[in-house]
Amino acid sequence: MKLLELYAKMKGDLNQIEQELERSVSDDHALLSESSTHLLKAGGKRIRPVFVLLSGKFGEYKLDVIKQIAVPLELIHMASLVHDDVIDDAETRRGQPTVKAKWDNRIAMYTGDYIHGKALSIATRLPNPIIHQVLSKALVEMCIGEMEQIRDFFNTDQSIRNYLLRIRRKTALLIAISCELGAIAAGAERQVSNALYRFGYNVGMAFQIRDDLLDLYGTEKQIGKPPGSDMRQGNITLPVILALRDERIREPLLGEIASIRSREGRGDARRAIELIRGSKGGDLADAMANRYIAKSLQALEGLPNITAKKNLIDIAHFVGKRNY
Amino acid sequence: MKLLELYAKMKGDLNQIEQELERSVSDDHALLSESSTHLLKAGGKRIRPVFVLLSGKFGEYKLDVIKQIAVPLELIHMASLVHDDVIDDAETRRGQPTVKAKWDNRIAMYTGDYIHGKALSIATRLPNPIIHQVLSKALVEMCIGEMEQIRDFFNTDQSIRNYLLRIRRKTALLIAISCELGAIAAGAERQVSNALYRFGYNVGMAFQIRDDLLDLYGTEKQIGKPPGSDMRQGNITLPVILALRDERIREPLLGEIASIRSREGRGDARRAIELIRGSKGGDLADAMANRYIAKSLQALEGLPNITAKKNLIDIAHFVGKRNY
Repeated sequence: MKLLELYAKMKGDLNQIEQELERSVSDDHALLSESSTHLLKAGGKRIRPVFVLLSGKFGEYKLDVIKQIAVPLELIHMASLVHDDVIDDAETRRGQPTVKAKWDNRIAMYTGDYIHGKALSIATRLPNPIIHQVLSKALVEMCIGEMEQIRDFFNTDQSIRNYLLRIRRKTALLIAISCELGAIAAGAERQVSNALYRFGYNVGMAFQIRDDLLDLYGTEKQIGKPPGSDMRQGNITLPVILALRDERIREPLLGEIASIRSREGRGDARRAIELIRGSKGGDLADAMANRYIAKSLQALEGLPNITAKKNLIDIAHFVGKRNY
Repeated sequence: MKLLELYAKMKGDLNQIEQELERSVSDDHALLSESSTHLLKAGGKRIRPVFVLLSGKFGEYKLDVIKQIAVPLELIHMASLVHDDVIDDAETRRGQPTVKAKWDNRIAMYTGDYIHGKALSIATRLPNPIIHQVLSKALVEMCIGEMEQIRDFFNTDQSIRNYLLRIRRKTALLIAISCELGAIAAGAERQVSNALYRFGYNVGMAFQIRDDLLDLYGTEKQIGKPPGSDMRQGNITLPVILALRDERIREPLLGEIASIRSREGRGDARRAIELIRGSKGGDLADAMANRYIAKSLQALEGLPNITAKKNLIDIAHFVGKRNY
């Protein structure tokens, strides 16, 4: 089944999540509601709620319960976007002005804090302390990931391990716990929720590697902005680390990165992208993404063959597909 | 008993809290630990842990349990300070450079996020969902309070009610739940934790009104910085709102506030402070603080006459005392 068909099939439940998301941020304070709703209206794939809902099918699926997990996980993702945009000094996201651009950094900071708080406040309606523990620990890890990203900006000596640890915290963890908590909220056995955690973790790793590849190999139309925005910002991703290992390319690429750095965000990454595309960086990163996809599929092996399992496999294949 | 004696008597338990605070932020990530520990070392009265510990005496007092509440509450307070310093563009706090001054706004934002996350993560070790609900709801309210403060900057038309709602969220709520959760964690009855919530709420309101009075009526030595910093920043506090009701003072005071505003933080509040000191604003605000203290004492009336109750009464009297 294609991903669009899956979304169509899940439309009823996803609409309810969407309504709940809107409701969750619209009842407190005019400016906070406005800034949060602005963010919500910009849309998104709602991939975390999709993972929560599908994982919930491995237990006793009650939408009224499951949505108390699906909504917080999307909110936590949204809050991290608002705070990211402050850090990245981003003016637009998904074609819309960012909260920091439409209002200012102060509003963006408290909007993020507020959405974080709301997320936890909704999740704590479910009286299972394990859920609260998993969520709050993930928040801590995500902050560490964000800090690592700042620390590693323009660090051309970072190891692959370094990169993997960072995207683990920045991306994979939230997808992993989306799967885990969906199952826990539905009362699935620990063994099941653990397997789904592993599935989500590996899909999340592949997802971020693919996203980083797209920024260097995609067209402007595919990405929605000129390629190389990670690089201009100083975010050294896997294909770059791998390209730097190529003797022929290392020195000129280091030169380009230093030049981009010296122009503080106004640099031109076109030459650097050419160099990377001329290396094996892309293929090697691609192979790593595929290995994570393979591991994600392995994680599902012991689970019952319900429709949701097929859907998760489809999503993994979709994430694994090279479309640039 | 004087407050210093109370601190001396509680020294053993407070030292343990201090160690736990340090441990809580020192094991994850070098830069985050450094920025968080920097903040911790700057000290503070640790008044929220004091309230938690004393309230815990109304139940079964086990320090190992109670500290899982005392530490998060101080951490939440600290996180709000880091984010406040970003908003206020503050260079120093308690004589030390702020996180945003020593590092930058980005580090300060994620340090705050990280400390928030840590706070929740520690609190969720206690498997009582009520505690997690109360904490996360308070976080949401505190964000709303911060946003209201930004919205109301330089708003000279705001009502007393407006001000009270704002300080309720900004200050009183966290002190209220310190008392409430200390009791809940110790397994006290709901009636007892409710009474302690009311005590903390009223003490917190008085505490903030006193703090706002101090900024206008205190000496530079008492405050640690020149008087009027709230006003320079645009924070219109209770004595100002009350002074604006005085026909003789309203027009010149409005003129001074407009002039401070036009100089964007580099304004001189001396003339405005003179005008306020010449009004009844201070006395009226003082009377309101006293009424909150009276209410806080009333809240304790039904509670057993243990030493902790006497200590709370002493603290309330201390907060109520005019020392400027």
